Amino acid sequence: MANTTPSRYPSRGTQDKETLYQIIDEGLFCTVAFVRDGIPHQIPTGFARVENDIYIHASAKSKFIEAIAGSIVSFSIIHLDALVLAPTAFDHSFNYRSVIGFAQAVEISDPTEKLKFFNLFTDRYIPGRINDIGEPNADQVNITKIVKLSLDNAAAKVRTGDVNVTMDSDSAWCGIIPLEQHYGQPQIDHQLDQNSPTPEYIKQLIDGSGKS
Amino acid sequence: MANTTPSRYPSRGTQDKETLYQIIDEGLFCTVAFVRDGIPHQIPTGFARVENDIYIHASAKSKFIEAIAGSIVSFSIIHLDALVLAPTAFDHSFNYRSVIGFAQAVEISDPTEKLKFFNLFTDRYIPGRINDIGEPNADQVNITKIVKLSLDNAAAKVRTGDVNVTMDSDSAWCGIIPLEQHYGQPQIDHQLDQNSPTPEYIKQLIDGSGKS
Repeated sequence: MANTTPSRYPSRGTQDKETLYQIIDEGLFCTVAFVRDGIPHQIPTGFARVENDIYIHASAKSKFIEAIAGSIVSFSIIHLDALVLAPTAFDHSFNYRSVIGFAQAVEISDPTEKLKFFNLFTDRYIPGRINDIGEPNADQVNITKIVKLSLDNAAAKVRTGDVNVTMDSDSAWCGIIPLEQHYGQPQIDHQLDQNSPTPEYIKQLIDGSGKS
Repeated sequence: MANTTPSRYPSRGTQDKETLYQIIDEGLFCTVAFVRDGIPHQIPTGFARVENDIYIHASAKSKFIEAIAGSIVSFSIIHLDALVLAPTAFDHSFNYRSVIGFAQAVEISDPTEKLKFFNLFTDRYIPGRINDIGEPNADQVNITKIVKLSLDNAAAKVRTGDVNVTMDSDSAWCGIIPLEQHYGQPQIDHQLDQNSPTPEYIKQLIDGSGKS
């Protein structure tokens, strides 16, 4: 398929599965690119990883999922971790962790496997949610298309740490400005009793997101 | 070129320039997709907007920038604003603001225009930085390739607000879990005096990021 070794800064590249899976599992969406009529299209979409595959889904009516089923796509997941401020504009950089891969999108058609994905997809974002709301019904599973993308041909690229140029003591301020992301306070829907307690699993999701 | 009207939920789509520019200017990176050897490639990269174009850059040695100069690419920028928790797994969603567009990548070769971009690119991320560190030199400008992508063929897609399904009073907890991003405390480089004061423009960048 296509080469996943970075052409720039190849030392930042790795195919180590632990690193790959960590970057992927922390991601909330991936960007999937595909070719239609010779033109590169792309769409950001939610996903879930199971072992060495990532799964994405869409309405069976979606043109996107129809276009990619059976085709070669690329996908990317990126976390921007910091701005890196160097002595010259030229040496400024980002700290980031990214994964880029190529795969043939393989459609999942077995309803049992589709249901398993559905539950996993919900619980991967909000652990405990399926237990609270129950599984989707057969119709809902039926009108959803799911494809999987193998991670066999994926690689991570990571920049971390300080500025890597030498500076003297009269240099401008240089260093790292970290970028932080976390969940804020949940807002209960206007249709529900505003005094309903927030479920434990939602509190845990929010508390657990405080550090990244 | 390609159609930018969303095929799913077309009511979420808009080509209003104000909306488009706001989403774009808040983005810290865009994902650029291109076709090479018939395969869809993509790369996340920093960018700056000037009027109705976005500009991206890379080392002149970069295979990516060489591959896209003169070619049709697509680009996307997305902000994930919240998880949307509905009564059924099927109706769960994200609140998001995204822009997707298609353009021919046009290389900028005039050194004066390149320098202007360089300054803008730095100050767009860290307003005031160029004033502190000075402009890049001619060599640095020379070994950097810049391309611009027109926003003529770009559209925004936005989902905002509450769950949009009817629920009854014995429903599970439903609502919004907002996702927040901001800059954390700056870390001065280990090569510099650790007691150097943080410049005002850096403090302002960090304070100004607290709300989004």
